[in-house]
Amino acid sequence: MPRIVEHDVRRAAACDAVIAIATWRGFAAVTVRAVAQELGTSTSGVTHYVSGRSELITLAIRREVTRRQSELLTATANVTGVAALRAMVDWAVQGEGRTAQRLWLAMLVGAHTDPIVRAELAAFDDWWDTLVTDLLRAEVPAERLQAVVDGVGVLVDGLLIASIQDDQCWPQERRRRVIDDWIEILLRPAAG
Amino acid sequence: MPRIVEHDVRRAAACDAVIAIATWRGFAAVTVRAVAQELGTSTSGVTHYVSGRSELITLAIRREVTRRQSELLTATANVTGVAALRAMVDWAVQGEGRTAQRLWLAMLVGAHTDPIVRAELAAFDDWWDTLVTDLLRAEVPAERLQAVVDGVGVLVDGLLIASIQDDQCWPQERRRRVIDDWIEILLRPAAG
Repeated sequence: MPRIVEHDVRRAAACDAVIAIATWRGFAAVTVRAVAQELGTSTSGVTHYVSGRSELITLAIRREVTRRQSELLTATANVTGVAALRAMVDWAVQGEGRTAQRLWLAMLVGAHTDPIVRAELAAFDDWWDTLVTDLLRAEVPAERLQAVVDGVGVLVDGLLIASIQDDQCWPQERRRRVIDDWIEILLRPAAG
Repeated sequence: MPRIVEHDVRRAAACDAVIAIATWRGFAAVTVRAVAQELGTSTSGVTHYVSGRSELITLAIRREVTRRQSELLTATANVTGVAALRAMVDWAVQGEGRTAQRLWLAMLVGAHTDPIVRAELAAFDDWWDTLVTDLLRAEVPAERLQAVVDGVGVLVDGLLIASIQDDQCWPQERRRRVIDDWIEILLRPAAG
C-alpha cells in the first residue's frame, strides 16, 4: 500500500476504535492503550500514526460530527422555516440508530470532565444554534428568538434521553407528539 | 458492634461504593470485584452482606431515588399547581450538585443496557409523572394533559444535559429563562 494511503487507513481504523470504545464504555475509557488493544497492535503501533490521546479523540469526534452535519443538511435540503426545524429535530432525535444515539450521549457525559470532548461538542452546538436561529428568524419575534433557540436545544437533548433510556416507553409516536406539541406552542404568539 | 447493626453499616458502605463507581465510571463498571476493591476488601467480604451485583445496584439506586423523592416533596411542600411544578423542575435541574447530576446521567446511560437500572428509573419516572399529572390536572385541558406531562419530562432531561455539559455556557439565568418560557407556553391556551 502506498505510504500516504496506509497512513490515512491506519488513522481511520484508530478513529473507528475510539468510537467503539467511547460508545460502549465512555470517553474516559479511551486511551492509547485501549485503542491499541482494540486494533490488536502495540501502543507505538498507534502513536506512529497519531500523536496521542488528544489527537485520537479530536479526529474521531470531528469525523462523527462532520458526518452528522452533512446528514442534517441533506435532511433539510428541500424545506425551509418551521418545516426545516421539524426535519432537524426529527433527524436529531430519531434519524440515527441507537448506537449513534449512545455515542452522542457518551459525548455529553464526556464533555463534563474532558475539555477536548467539551470543545468539540461546543463547536457543534454553535453550528446547530446558528442553523436554528437562521430558520426561525422570520417565524419568531426578535426578543423571543434566543429563548426559542435554547428551547429547541433542550427539546432535542431531552428527547434523546427519553428515546435512549427506554424505547418501549417512548415509542416514536409519543416522541412525535411531544415534538408537534412543542413546535406548535413555541410558535404560538404570547397571550395578549 | 451488634451483628444486625454491622450488617446495615456494611450494606450502606457497599451502596456508597456503588454510587462512587457509577457516578464517575458508569454502571457498566459496577461489579462485585470493583465494589470490593473500593472498600478494600475481598469479593466474599461483599457477598457476605449482599447477594451479588443485582442487589448491589438495586439497593444503591433505591437509596438515591428515595432521597431524591423526599427532597423533592420537601421542595414542593408549601406550593400547589404551576408554582409547585416550577419548584419541581427547578429542583430537578439545579437543586442538586454536579455530582448528583452526573450520577443521574449515569443512570440514564446505564438504563440503555442494564435492565436493573432501567426498571428502577422507570419506577421513578412513573412516580414523577403521577406527581406532575396531579399538579397540572386543574391547569391544563384533559386532552392535552399527557402531552404537557411528557413535555415537562423532556424539559427536565434536556436541561440536565445542558447544565451538566457546560456550566459556563448554561449559567443558571439561561436555564431559568428556558424554564420560564417553557412553562408559560406549555400552559398557554390553544389559538382559537
